[in-house]
Amino acid sequence: MTEIIAPPASLHNPDVRGFASDNYSGVHPEILAALAAANGGHQTAYGDDVYTHRLQELMQEHFGAGTEAFPVFNGTGANVLSLQSMLPRWGAVICAQTAHINKDENGAPERIAGIKLLTVPTPDGKLTPELIDLEAWGWGDEHRAQPLAVSITQTTELGTLYTVEEIRAIADHVHARGMYLHLDGARIANAAAALNLPLRAFTRDAGVDILSFGGTKNGLIFGECVVVLNPDAATGLTYLRKMNMQLASKMRFISAQLIALLEDGLWLRSAAHSNAMAARLTALVQEIPGVQLTQQTAANAVFAVLPRDAAERVREQFKFYDWDTATGEVRWMCSFDTTADDVDAFAEAIRRETAASPHQIGHLQA
Amino acid sequence: MTEIIAPPASLHNPDVRGFASDNYSGVHPEILAALAAANGGHQTAYGDDVYTHRLQELMQEHFGAGTEAFPVFNGTGANVLSLQSMLPRWGAVICAQTAHINKDENGAPERIAGIKLLTVPTPDGKLTPELIDLEAWGWGDEHRAQPLAVSITQTTELGTLYTVEEIRAIADHVHARGMYLHLDGARIANAAAALNLPLRAFTRDAGVDILSFGGTKNGLIFGECVVVLNPDAATGLTYLRKMNMQLASKMRFISAQLIALLEDGLWLRSAAHSNAMAARLTALVQEIPGVQLTQQTAANAVFAVLPRDAAERVREQFKFYDWDTATGEVRWMCSFDTTADDVDAFAEAIRRETAASPHQIGHLQA
Amino acid sequence: MTEIIAPPASLHNPDVRGFASDNYSGVHPEILAALAAANGGHQTAYGDDVYTHRLQELMQEHFGAGTEAFPVFNGTGANVLSLQSMLPRWGAVICAQTAHINKDENGAPERIAGIKLLTVPTPDGKLTPELIDLEAWGWGDEHRAQPLAVSITQTTELGTLYTVEEIRAIADHVHARGMYLHLDGARIANAAAALNLPLRAFTRDAGVDILSFGGTKNGLIFGECVVVLNPDAATGLTYLRKMNMQLASKMRFISAQLIALLEDGLWLRSAAHSNAMAARLTALVQEIPGVQLTQQTAANAVFAVLPRDAAERVREQFKFYDWDTATGEVRWMCSFDTTADDVDAFAEAIRRETAASPHQIGHLQA
Amino acid sequence: MTEIIAPPASLHNPDVRGFASDNYSGVHPEILAALAAANGGHQTAYGDDVYTHRLQELMQEHFGAGTEAFPVFNGTGANVLSLQSMLPRWGAVICAQTAHINKDENGAPERIAGIKLLTVPTPDGKLTPELIDLEAWGWGDEHRAQPLAVSITQTTELGTLYTVEEIRAIADHVHARGMYLHLDGARIANAAAALNLPLRAFTRDAGVDILSFGGTKNGLIFGECVVVLNPDAATGLTYLRKMNMQLASKMRFISAQLIALLEDGLWLRSAAHSNAMAARLTALVQEIPGVQLTQQTAANAVFAVLPRDAAERVREQFKFYDWDTATGEVRWMCSFDTTADDVDAFAEAIRRETAASPHQIGHLQA
Repeated sequence: MTEIIAPPASLHNPDVRGFASDNYSGVHPEILAALAAANGGHQTAYGDDVYTHRLQELMQEHFGAGTEAFPVFNGTGANVLSLQSMLPRWGAVICAQTAHINKDENGAPERIAGIKLLTVPTPDGKLTPELIDLEAWGWGDEHRAQPLAVSITQTTELGTLYTVEEIRAIADHVHARGMYLHLDGARIANAAAALNLPLRAFTRDAGVDILSFGGTKNGLIFGECVVVLNPDAATGLTYLRKMNMQLASKMRFISAQLIALLEDGLWLRSAAHSNAMAARLTALVQEIPGVQLTQQTAANAVFAVLPRDAAERVREQFKFYDWDTATGEVRWMCSFDTTADDVDAFAEAIRRETAASPHQIGHLQA
Repeated sequence: MTEIIAPPASLHNPDVRGFASDNYSGVHPEILAALAAANGGHQTAYGDDVYTHRLQELMQEHFGAGTEAFPVFNGTGANVLSLQSMLPRWGAVICAQTAHINKDENGAPERIAGIKLLTVPTPDGKLTPELIDLEAWGWGDEHRAQPLAVSITQTTELGTLYTVEEIRAIADHVHARGMYLHLDGARIANAAAALNLPLRAFTRDAGVDILSFGGTKNGLIFGECVVVLNPDAATGLTYLRKMNMQLASKMRFISAQLIALLEDGLWLRSAAHSNAMAARLTALVQEIPGVQLTQQTAANAVFAVLPRDAAERVREQFKFYDWDTATGEVRWMCSFDTTADDVDAFAEAIRRETAASPHQIGHLQA
Repeated sequence: MTEIIAPPASLHNPDVRGFASDNYSGVHPEILAALAAANGGHQTAYGDDVYTHRLQELMQEHFGAGTEAFPVFNGTGANVLSLQSMLPRWGAVICAQTAHINKDENGAPERIAGIKLLTVPTPDGKLTPELIDLEAWGWGDEHRAQPLAVSITQTTELGTLYTVEEIRAIADHVHARGMYLHLDGARIANAAAALNLPLRAFTRDAGVDILSFGGTKNGLIFGECVVVLNPDAATGLTYLRKMNMQLASKMRFISAQLIALLEDGLWLRSAAHSNAMAARLTALVQEIPGVQLTQQTAANAVFAVLPRDAAERVREQFKFYDWDTATGEVRWMCSFDTTADDVDAFAEAIRRETAASPHQIGHLQA
Repeated sequence: MTEIIAPPASLHNPDVRGFASDNYSGVHPEILAALAAANGGHQTAYGDDVYTHRLQELMQEHFGAGTEAFPVFNGTGANVLSLQSMLPRWGAVICAQTAHINKDENGAPERIAGIKLLTVPTPDGKLTPELIDLEAWGWGDEHRAQPLAVSITQTTELGTLYTVEEIRAIADHVHARGMYLHLDGARIANAAAALNLPLRAFTRDAGVDILSFGGTKNGLIFGECVVVLNPDAATGLTYLRKMNMQLASKMRFISAQLIALLEDGLWLRSAAHSNAMAARLTALVQEIPGVQLTQQTAANAVFAVLPRDAAERVREQFKFYDWDTATGEVRWMCSFDTTADDVDAFAEAIRRETAASPHQIGHLQA
């Protein structure tokens, strides 16, 4: 590491937090410190550095021998690379209609990777063998994009959680049909915390072939990682990462962050904390007349319906997103830096504004 | 900003530096401090934050009113986005055969952006109107990928430098044929320092339409920027950035680094320093019998031929790259953190090992 | 034209016909004669020939002044080119889940054109403004593939038919939201015959911007045509056709076929005939106990459910396709060369085998 | 086959021929007859028909056991499919700068197949092991598009011809480096005629892995064929053909043409004839003062320089193309339907107009 100098003045107020997204947060102080420690001197660019080598070891400790880690810039990059590495050019991926790869990546899987997504409606963001079978057919028919992989998200975009058994059932089903299983783990740490299980228990040991390991939403400045659990499933990631513009020249700084996350349990502490904050928020708001939870709070996200006018008044104080403007459903997301005071103040604002609403209905608003 | 905690131990020796690449360096301490200052609290993700807004103002100060800045992760991303934003699906780009987009991006322009490159051989990495005309033809012929943009690099991959007049002549030529001009500015700061001119003098004022503004090679942890100088030339960058997987969620941290680079002249101080180190190295090695410079040292890169056995022995002490294994040409790159002592020790090693070589030939080795 | 010589022996039995698809048929004799007439001598390749010029006139007679016609090889080509010519790189297309572009083109729109499809479930293959609105949202949000076009099929993949008013309502809805309207007219002639309307009445006059004009399924040897009704909607088709590998060198032979189809009403005679055959089949089978029609027979396709064992026995005599193996639904398609005797024999076989089935249920089989 | 009816009137003069291209010609009468023979009745679409099955046998007779044939629409389609089937997503193809895939396909290999072309300058359109080595390097380097295939053209775009030994030397060289060899055989019949060798002698037996078999330029109405000689080299062609929009529904009509071409030597008779016509033309024009041949006439193309004003006056009588406007080089192409009288009249026109030119220089015009 090199000299650390005094930071300049901030342009923003560092005391303001909301419930919009875990990527509205900044960086965990331990991560920032790790960047400083990795600084100074020269290290070979593009991944042949001591930090990236150390990261391989750490990923193997967490996910088992033979695991291969490919640090990348962001979650879309991790997902697209993962899927592309598993599929021939004619491959298709079965996923939930609510999946991030389908809804929030501006078609990157289709446009950049040439992958057709075969989407399945699901009320809670979770796939099942039966749902997968809605699209798992037509192998050998040249007119049909060939379903050769399934992608699940853990925790899901709806804040729900697969059990180990559910993932294993999916993996067995998928493998029996000659497909591979990808797990979008943008919030994989929250899942581990919620399941109270090691990372490998619900991934490698449950049959997942490849996963996108999330860092940014768990306190990194930037950085995710493609983690190959089944080396037979993935081909050419070295080349795919470069041609897909996800190869960091100063890769040591992604790896150093991931090391800091994984080495001493920071990943779990941060995730457990954000989950606890969501649980606290859930406990508080489910008592409020006029607020109705719409998904089970399994990790760090809370989904609810409340009167629209109340939602608007709360939003003037705390940022958060509408999830479904048609039904009035909103999403409240907790982060590693969410405090109990933040939650209490937010719940109080929800209580106050809902009470002040003339529309204190307790059901979904059509 | 938030609490700053003591960094953990480094895994590497921060006192070892070489001459392999300016992306072997780490991060400038002022940049690291800027990350800390931008930390804490919540900021809207994906670019609607105060740092990214401030960056827009700074880019306009440097490049003129109406300039638009799109921070991205890396140089390949900046180049591909820039080119794609200027071209219809049937567009082609004329560039030097030595261009980074042609040689070092694993086909990202072709594969990801669907862009055909029309390459021109050039001894010094620089295009001219005459060289451009080798490929600037065939408009309206559906069989030919339509040449609708030209891309130049400043400073070039061979360490050479365009004058303002040369760029203006190219821009006029290009525009007269209905094409746009892109400038790959991975080392644009080194060019400004070498030319002793403001950034806009040899870009916007010389007719460049869009450029890739380099940060990583000039002391950033990561982060480049697509800078649109002629808004008529670029379309859809907001969408292209996302679909091309170059949209950072915590964008404030790219923007904060670029602000730190641009606000108080750090960009120029670092670039001038690395140029000075290359000049120092040039002065020292050109006196060494058996070493022959192969390109004019215009910025922070030195290209030379020396006896192969000598090169190998020097490389055991300082890392650097072969440039052309057929001729024995090597590249020595200086960085913001290269010291005069580094240069002197390196030149001394070159002198010593070349003197010890039985092949002290002073010409290109076939 | 040139010398016509006696054909060699056929390898197949030209008297065997089935109900599998209108592309199992051969070529209408008038089309074959037109090929001979266009033969001989030299004509400029790639479309600058008298036949392609004449085709432009004919298309304008049918679809109105300013219409532009781009002959291509096949239907997937026509669809992909049409959509790509209307969309920027970040565009998405709203279509029915049953659309050919979604189900039967192995992802060509996504893989080749980089187009995201936003699919909507619909029981009869038809979109409505309300169904379109399920996906027509999110403009300006960079995370969402931008819905900028809608594609409908006339007649649909389920053999159903849009009225003029229905298409006009869709077109108005689509245009009011800044989108364009594409019509996949692989069976557009059958639609015109069924509606008893000129081609332009339910396309250009109803607000369609661009369409895929089908030839192959209506008696051509090969050949479809992208027909641009609103020149403001389409860009670069000349280039797109070549780069998408749909540019025929001896284009005169596609154009000559389309001329033969369009010049003297062959298109309508053939389509009206195949529609009439489907109507005849419908009339015969709807009286058969154990056979239940599942879609209204609007043109040349009949959809029905019958006992599986009966279907299998009928299939030994006449080829046809399962449509939905889960429900036992089958598709029976008539063609320009289907005869009344074919229909009667087929219906008789269905009657006979259904009567012989132990499962003469008259409802959908789960 | 079905009824053959009298053709309508031609729109063009079938007695006018020129020397512009072999795809300005129409269809050989035997091919037209074969279309009629394949007509009538129903045949399974998309290739599961008796004609396509018979074609497989014929291709195996010509190219050896295990050969697989995939009929497609056009030459660009055949080339792009061939290359894509041999390459992973990160693959690159080494080819001559003059190759059709590089110059005349509007970037289809790059845009549609995501293939980077590594081009090599060559004076006569032919590659050699030495020329290949200019780009055959950098395997394992993620920054470089991986050179995994070489594409040669036989006969070349410059009318020149590889010997069997030259192709074998290239194949051995290519295979020794872990690459595959593709042969663009748009004019493969002309090569066989010129070499006086069976098709397999200079393809499969010389080490070619996959080839594009040309039909259109040799008298077909449309239709080419991907021919896989080494099944280990190609993957997924069934799917690639569909997703790349090259799958003909009424495939029997492509196959029937190729059968007619291959079954009784029509391919060779037509090619030998067009070669003979080019030889006749060469013999006549090389005696004309002021005309200078620029390539050896090996097959059906003649390249020459003549005074520009003379060229323009000849062109008013017979169509042909400029090849290089900078040097005044033109291309004269003979076809299956070129007659000896055509050649004699053309040579006479060249003689007359060149004699009338004030610029009867016999050297290349700068």
